[in-house]
Amino acid sequence: MRPLILITNDDGLMAKGLQELIVTMRPLGDLVVVAPDGPRSGMSSAITVNVPTRLHKISEEDGLKRYRCSGTPVDCVKLALHILFPDKAPDLLVTGINHGTNSSISVVYSGTMGATIEGCINEVPSIGFSLCNHLPDADFSHVLPFVHRIAANVLEHGLSEGVCLNVNMPDAPPKGVRICRQANGRWTEEFVRHVDPHGLPYFWLTGIFSNKEPQAMDTDEWALDNDFIAIVPTKIDMTAHEAINALKIWEL
Amino acid sequence: MRPLILITNDDGLMAKGLQELIVTMRPLGDLVVVAPDGPRSGMSSAITVNVPTRLHKISEEDGLKRYRCSGTPVDCVKLALHILFPDKAPDLLVTGINHGTNSSISVVYSGTMGATIEGCINEVPSIGFSLCNHLPDADFSHVLPFVHRIAANVLEHGLSEGVCLNVNMPDAPPKGVRICRQANGRWTEEFVRHVDPHGLPYFWLTGIFSNKEPQAMDTDEWALDNDFIAIVPTKIDMTAHEAINALKIWEL
Repeated sequence: MRPLILITNDDGLMAKGLQELIVTMRPLGDLVVVAPDGPRSGMSSAITVNVPTRLHKISEEDGLKRYRCSGTPVDCVKLALHILFPDKAPDLLVTGINHGTNSSISVVYSGTMGATIEGCINEVPSIGFSLCNHLPDADFSHVLPFVHRIAANVLEHGLSEGVCLNVNMPDAPPKGVRICRQANGRWTEEFVRHVDPHGLPYFWLTGIFSNKEPQAMDTDEWALDNDFIAIVPTKIDMTAHEAINALKIWEL
Repeated sequence: MRPLILITNDDGLMAKGLQELIVTMRPLGDLVVVAPDGPRSGMSSAITVNVPTRLHKISEEDGLKRYRCSGTPVDCVKLALHILFPDKAPDLLVTGINHGTNSSISVVYSGTMGATIEGCINEVPSIGFSLCNHLPDADFSHVLPFVHRIAANVLEHGLSEGVCLNVNMPDAPPKGVRICRQANGRWTEEFVRHVDPHGLPYFWLTGIFSNKEPQAMDTDEWALDNDFIAIVPTKIDMTAHEAINALKIWEL
C-alpha cells in the first residue's frame, strides 16, 4: 500500500511553495492537502477556540485530494487527523514549502512549524520545509530533490517519538545537508511607527535577526549562511531538564 | 530603585485573573500592564504580520500604568519592550493569571506561555501563571500568596538564560510547590460537528486531555492532580540534541 501523506502550510492554499511540495511528494504516496484558505504566517501553534472552523473538499483526483480550511495551520492538522483520518493516521506530514526562513528562534513564531509540531504531538512523522526566500514567486527548483530525499528518508527510517524536523533551505544551490541545532538568536528593532489620518499611531511588525553565536558552526544559521540545508531535530518537550535541580532549593 | 515589572495575559485586559495578578504584584515593584483588548486564548506565540497593531495608554497612577493592545499576547510583549522600554528592559515579566491550565502539551498552544516565552527570548526573567479553573469568576485567593512568593524568588535569584517558568496552580488549596517536567500528553477527540442553516458542516474545537504517563510523579500533571502547584522550567531551545547523531548517518 502506498504511504498516506498529509500536506499543509501557512502561506495558504494558493502559495507556490505548496504547489511545489505537492508535485515533489506525489511519487512518494497518496496525498491529502488540507491548507488554510489564505495566508497564516506567524501563527505559531495558534488554535481557533472562539469561532467554529470550516473544512471543504475542493478537488479530488487519483492520489490527490485537496481541502481548504478556515483556521490556522494547527487547525488544519487537527481537523485532518480527527475528521478525515479518525481510524488510521497518515504515514507522514509535510508542511511548506514556506516562503521565508524558519531557522533559529523563528521556529517559535512559525505557522509552518506549528503545524509540523502538531503532527509530531499526534505521533505522525512530521517535517517542516522552508526556503530562505519570502517572495511569492520564489524559485524552489534547486531544493526539490532534497525535499524528496529527506521525506523518503523519514518514510524509511521514521522519527523518534516527540521529535520532528525543521528543514530550512538556502536560496542558492545547496552544497549539501547538515544536521544542526537551533542557533541562539532573536529579532530586534521590531516595529515601524506610522500615524493614521486621525493622528493616532500604529505599528507594523518588522525586525532584524540577531544571531548571538555567529561563529558556532553547528547551528542552522551557520549552515544557511554557508549555503547548506539545515535540518534541526525539534522536540515538543520544552522542559529545561537541566534547570530542575537548581530550582528545587528555592524556598517556595 | 523599585523593580520594573511588565504584566500581560491572553484573556484580555478585563479578565479577573489579570486584576488579581496586578494586585498581587504591586508590593513588588512598579507595574506596566500591556494586555490584549479582548480574549486571545490559544494564540500560542502568534504574531501579527499582515495588519498593523495599536497600543493605547488607558490609565496611569502611582506605580501602575495600563495599556491596551490590539494584537496577540506576543505582540503585547514585543510592543512593550520596543516602544515603551527601548533603553532598559523590565526586571520581570509576569503573565496571567490564566483562567485555565497550561500544563503538559498545552504549553504549546497557550497565549499566556507565548508571551512568557517572548519575554525569555528577550532576556527578561519571565513567569507564566495559570489556574486550573477556566470560569470567568474563578476564585484566585488561595494561590495569590504563592504567586507573590514565586515572583519574589525570581526577582531575587533570576533565571538562567533561555529558561522561563510555566506555573500551573490547582483549583484547591495548594499542598505546596513542586518543580516538575512537562508531562507527555496530548488532546484527543477534539471536534464537535454542527450543521449551519444552509446544510454545511462546521467544527468547534473541544477535546479531552490524555496523559500518556499518569503514574509518573515528576510531572506537572501529577502535581496538579495531587493539589500541588507545578513549576516547569521551560526553554526556548527546541532542539532535540539527543537526536542529532542518529540523523547524521542518514544518506541525505
